Amino acid sequence: MQLTSFTDYSIRTLMYLAAHSQDISSVGKISEYYGISRNHLVKVVHQLAQFGYIETSKGRGGGIKISEGATTLKLGDLIARLEPNMDMVECFDSKTNTCRITDSCQLKHYLHEATRAYIDALNQYTLADTIMNKEILFS
Amino acid sequence: MQLTSFTDYSIRTLMYLAAHSQDISSVGKISEYYGISRNHLVKVVHQLAQFGYIETSKGRGGGIKISEGATTLKLGDLIARLEPNMDMVECFDSKTNTCRITDSCQLKHYLHEATRAYIDALNQYTLADTIMNKEILFS
Repeated sequence: MQLTSFTDYSIRTLMYLAAHSQDISSVGKISEYYGISRNHLVKVVHQLAQFGYIETSKGRGGGIKISEGATTLKLGDLIARLEPNMDMVECFDSKTNTCRITDSCQLKHYLHEATRAYIDALNQYTLADTIMNKEILFS
Repeated sequence: MQLTSFTDYSIRTLMYLAAHSQDISSVGKISEYYGISRNHLVKVVHQLAQFGYIETSKGRGGGIKISEGATTLKLGDLIARLEPNMDMVECFDSKTNTCRITDSCQLKHYLHEATRAYIDALNQYTLADTIMNKEILFS
């Protein structure tokens, strides 16, 4: 059970931008800072902009910055949005499910409850909490 | 965030065997019952036997059955054992981690807490709980 590297890189990008909220940043700077492939980050930044978490501006002096209010994003909700899906097992997606015991199976309820507990635990924290010690993090 | 199909099939296999604990079963029967590839199930059964969750016997009248006591397995512990890893993000594995903010990053603590909440929520239930209504499940 893992988060995708897309989610991992997305959160790192948001942390970087939240910690540098006074500056205009760029894919190049973040790519260099973390040593993450520029190609990966272009996709990450595109998606984060689509979700409204970051703002992009073109031209001389353009770049990317965190959107106003994005630091109040709850981490559980953020991760649930960034992940392609939270389908623990096949039957979580009724459109593709083939398991024949689904209707009366208790396991799916237990797994839904656990997934909820995971999201709720993360929702105690916001993006702002992840950069509380930003001077040390990005020194 | 998903469990692997290996974990999914392992739990289904254990549920089937727990519900048919009086019988000697086989990979063929379980494969046919769920419509899961026989090749997948051979690997699943091999691993479950290695973990001691099931017993295998060879020869005429041989097959597989649930091990004594396996129905008391807690689902969280079971899933943590079956999954190849529970490394939410890169820094959960210090041997391969490249993220430069790891030392002072709070995110890993929040993700560890959430993963613990996930496992704990599942540990409220045992394999036996998943087959409480076994007459309906495997009718």
